[in-house]
Amino acid sequence: MKVVVLVGSRSDLEAAEKVKQRLESLKVPCDVHVASAHRTPEKVDRLVADPEADVFVAMAGLSAALPGAVAARTLKPVVGVPLNRGLGLDSLLSVVQMPPGVPVASVGLDASENAALLAAEILALKHPEVLAALRAYRAKWKEEAPAPAPPAA
Amino acid sequence: MKVVVLVGSRSDLEAAEKVKQRLESLKVPCDVHVASAHRTPEKVDRLVADPEADVFVAMAGLSAALPGAVAARTLKPVVGVPLNRGLGLDSLLSVVQMPPGVPVASVGLDASENAALLAAEILALKHPEVLAALRAYRAKWKEEAPAPAPPAA
Amino acid sequence: MKVVVLVGSRSDLEAAEKVKQRLESLKVPCDVHVASAHRTPEKVDRLVADPEADVFVAMAGLSAALPGAVAARTLKPVVGVPLNRGLGLDSLLSVVQMPPGVPVASVGLDASENAALLAAEILALKHPEVLAALRAYRAKWKEEAPAPAPPAA
Amino acid sequence: MKVVVLVGSRSDLEAAEKVKQRLESLKVPCDVHVASAHRTPEKVDRLVADPEADVFVAMAGLSAALPGAVAARTLKPVVGVPLNRGLGLDSLLSVVQMPPGVPVASVGLDASENAALLAAEILALKHPEVLAALRAYRAKWKEEAPAPAPPAA
Amino acid sequence: MKVVVLVGSRSDLEAAEKVKQRLESLKVPCDVHVASAHRTPEKVDRLVADPEADVFVAMAGLSAALPGAVAARTLKPVVGVPLNRGLGLDSLLSVVQMPPGVPVASVGLDASENAALLAAEILALKHPEVLAALRAYRAKWKEEAPAPAPPAA
Amino acid sequence: MKVVVLVGSRSDLEAAEKVKQRLESLKVPCDVHVASAHRTPEKVDRLVADPEADVFVAMAGLSAALPGAVAARTLKPVVGVPLNRGLGLDSLLSVVQMPPGVPVASVGLDASENAALLAAEILALKHPEVLAALRAYRAKWKEEAPAPAPPAA
Amino acid sequence: MKVVVLVGSRSDLEAAEKVKQRLESLKVPCDVHVASAHRTPEKVDRLVADPEADVFVAMAGLSAALPGAVAARTLKPVVGVPLNRGLGLDSLLSVVQMPPGVPVASVGLDASENAALLAAEILALKHPEVLAALRAYRAKWKEEAPAPAPPAA
Amino acid sequence: MKVVVLVGSRSDLEAAEKVKQRLESLKVPCDVHVASAHRTPEKVDRLVADPEADVFVAMAGLSAALPGAVAARTLKPVVGVPLNRGLGLDSLLSVVQMPPGVPVASVGLDASENAALLAAEILALKHPEVLAALRAYRAKWKEEAPAPAPPAA
Repeated sequence: MKVVVLVGSRSDLEAAEKVKQRLESLKVPCDVHVASAHRTPEKVDRLVADPEADVFVAMAGLSAALPGAVAARTLKPVVGVPLNRGLGLDSLLSVVQMPPGVPVASVGLDASENAALLAAEILALKHPEVLAALRAYRAKWKEEAPAPAPPAA
Repeated sequence: MKVVVLVGSRSDLEAAEKVKQRLESLKVPCDVHVASAHRTPEKVDRLVADPEADVFVAMAGLSAALPGAVAARTLKPVVGVPLNRGLGLDSLLSVVQMPPGVPVASVGLDASENAALLAAEILALKHPEVLAALRAYRAKWKEEAPAPAPPAA
Repeated sequence: MKVVVLVGSRSDLEAAEKVKQRLESLKVPCDVHVASAHRTPEKVDRLVADPEADVFVAMAGLSAALPGAVAARTLKPVVGVPLNRGLGLDSLLSVVQMPPGVPVASVGLDASENAALLAAEILALKHPEVLAALRAYRAKWKEEAPAPAPPAA
Repeated sequence: MKVVVLVGSRSDLEAAEKVKQRLESLKVPCDVHVASAHRTPEKVDRLVADPEADVFVAMAGLSAALPGAVAARTLKPVVGVPLNRGLGLDSLLSVVQMPPGVPVASVGLDASENAALLAAEILALKHPEVLAALRAYRAKWKEEAPAPAPPAA
Repeated sequence: MKVVVLVGSRSDLEAAEKVKQRLESLKVPCDVHVASAHRTPEKVDRLVADPEADVFVAMAGLSAALPGAVAARTLKPVVGVPLNRGLGLDSLLSVVQMPPGVPVASVGLDASENAALLAAEILALKHPEVLAALRAYRAKWKEEAPAPAPPAA
Repeated sequence: MKVVVLVGSRSDLEAAEKVKQRLESLKVPCDVHVASAHRTPEKVDRLVADPEADVFVAMAGLSAALPGAVAARTLKPVVGVPLNRGLGLDSLLSVVQMPPGVPVASVGLDASENAALLAAEILALKHPEVLAALRAYRAKWKEEAPAPAPPAA
Repeated sequence: MKVVVLVGSRSDLEAAEKVKQRLESLKVPCDVHVASAHRTPEKVDRLVADPEADVFVAMAGLSAALPGAVAARTLKPVVGVPLNRGLGLDSLLSVVQMPPGVPVASVGLDASENAALLAAEILALKHPEVLAALRAYRAKWKEEAPAPAPPAA
Repeated sequence: MKVVVLVGSRSDLEAAEKVKQRLESLKVPCDVHVASAHRTPEKVDRLVADPEADVFVAMAGLSAALPGAVAARTLKPVVGVPLNRGLGLDSLLSVVQMPPGVPVASVGLDASENAALLAAEILALKHPEVLAALRAYRAKWKEEAPAPAPPAA
């Protein structure tokens, strides 16, 4: 069991680390890689072919092609995270408005926390220890909300 | 194994039926229900508690609260489908911009096809026959794209 | 007579306190609670069932489900206040574009002042002392405008 | 007890009639008037001064000044209904983004149904027969949602 | 000959002063007043009735009713200046999307400079000394552009 | 005394004719020309140099350069009319968001009626017969609003 | 010398044919292919490797990844044409807001005519007969504008 | 061989210098000029007539007329760069939504890097040394992405 997180450039690694930390707190192993649909498609190919990966998280800003590029290469679930690197709406619409046949599970702008939770929920269907960790997370969450992301701009 | 599709009103049933048809073509059983977070929260409670449901698809227009309402009641994956019943952007932003702790896997506006594919991909992690059906779908899709949805307005 | 203000998370308490202060200056008692439609729906249930509450004010950012969740639980008036926690338009559209049957009285983005005034106007229909306080407020307001909120982003 | 509905031009009367019909079904008397903040401010003055009016509903498109003009003239609650006569966003933002001191209770674009319900809820605080009618409405609504408005454009 | 500049609140006086300074550099006398369509409509009435005023400049943010309120009271030209006090688009659309019969000459967001130039151009049709000043301004401008306004948010 | 109306292409002539008809009803002579900043800049030069022209009206869609092109060539007032030929917002923002030094008096999307009224108001400062016609127009308008333009899309 | 036009699905062929017709009228040979970055990346690889291709035109709707996918595979110029298949803004922002390192020459929404002209201008730098054809086109265009595209939605 | 970069005002020179530096690193000579379609059209005429110029880059904010003004004066390729000086969307839509017959190759908001790359790609069709430099750039880029531009507002 593993989640593979891909970001298009090194400057997006901070957002990826938040996904990884939340996943590991939920008992889900997680790898983070810089791999771009445009710059290093072979690396994307290689990462997507990883047989241990169950779910992918792809994070990108501007015209965010990475989530769709991953989704077109695999039949495993792909979570897309639009990052606010321009107008906000640009990456949001690029990630969520996918053409039919290339499903991406979009979360909100800069929503690392929800991306990790969504990936964990998918894995919890098979992995009782992840479900148990999610239950503990949610029990705590019911008492105190996580801090919201700062305003987009 | 089952996907449960929820729509907020009878007028959204046509969009739900498209999800169901695609899922059944992928060997995934699917129930469709009209159940509103606002009008019939107990019915949402009851449907979400269905132990046979593995994935939920929630479809709504305008200020679309249903996907988040389902996601807050379960730790199973929830796919949200914004329906264009107003400005387009209203349901899109309502579905995708969820606060931290309530993950919704948003697909595009009126994107019934991708909602079904995403749900099937999640189930294919455990169900080889669904994976096989997805492979057949994708092989055919590689030759011919599904018809895109009509312009949003 | 009482106004009950609900915010979805502790980080929104500052905006709620502004509502409370303005209401109390208008002779309207006001309680503030953190209660989330997603995290603590039972608490929302309980607060909404308060027989002393006449008007509710619900404040939330991002995909703001709280105002609608309150409005669906009561037949008392609900004022919704979209808070700018992302794109601005996301919470604004989520609060104002409610489906038919779930009326929310939306004020502007981060508009704590107007939310308090609107709640007071509703109560002034029955409570002459609130009407008198509103008249005094408006007389002073006619001479000097309240400071506008800062730019949204 | 009375609700006074104001529309800026004769072409908006159809939307006003929907408000009136819903209100009358809820035992709330309702007058409809064409009165423009720009064309006939004296008529607005006169209508707003009506001592029998308890709540106002003001409906307008484009740069919709009427709801604010009514709200500035009275301390009674004013419900604003943005009508889609241009971009949609123009009237929506004009009605909801009021400056501090001029509270307008905005409902959604073309949302006649919710405007009537909101006005009735305000009156139900004093009028048990309106509350009873709202309860009956909501009981029926819980079984069947009202038809949503058509797409905005 | 005189231009009368109206702003809705004291916090907008800085923008008004820029209009005044540019106008005076173009030989156009200019008065600045705080007067709100909502708070002090009688003051707006009185200022608009000034027989020496030839052109009005009305500046406001959020749902900006002031330019239309002035335009409805006079048949003299009214220049509207949307000020960025919220989303930017809110005041812009409120000022420019006027209903038929209430013409407002909108300039851009926070565009004090262009508001002054437009008012001066209108006056230059009758006043040769203003035309001469505009010619001198433009000759200089052809050599060096005025500094643009900073980004809106 | 004359208003010169310029449209960028023959397909915009219908909107220009509405300006002309309203102006002539207000005793203002009006010429209509097809002249494009891009295609026929010399024709724009020639038309702008017309000594009998007092006010220009420039109408264009998409990225609407014509109003600014006229404004940069003259010190007479230029009214800009954004026409809805694409997204609506494209021409609206192109006409209203002019850089400092090039003032354009923008009216709303497809707002031929207000463009004519604004031009007439400018001319009425010198021409008593135009002021008289505007007074008659407004007296009639106070009784009946002109039909609003249809929704933009 | 050749321009290769790629569209993501058969339903976009009509837009591609307009590019081809205009290019051929300008003496530029043109091939049209259906090839999707997601469905048939090997076909995109093969088409992009065509040594006779000098310029590519890539057309797509929704989250439009095709122009960027082509641009990342070649150092030849790539013209991107956003097609209106959803909100309009989705494909427009997806095509124009490319990350640094992947240049796409975006034209407007559904702007087949300008895509062809831009490709021809690039080729005219080396091919005098294309320059001559462009000169003839422009001479004619100076007399009569091409019909604009219909409103986007 | 030469690229000529035009910016509308001195305050845009920093963005132009980035284009120049990138071009020179790619062996492409580059001149930068301040020249405005509105202020100094004769200078634009003169620069566009430069027989050594092969490609133009035009950069502007707000209602950005400069790229179209250059494109209308030449049959050489014109790259347009919208600069964020207001709402962001204003210059973006002004540059990309050109009417048919005036092709502009738009890159993203503030996208100096991509503007230089696009111009170099066009020149590389004739100039092998530029192609070689682009190949070296891309080889390095494949290993490390350039830093993305900061958020637009």
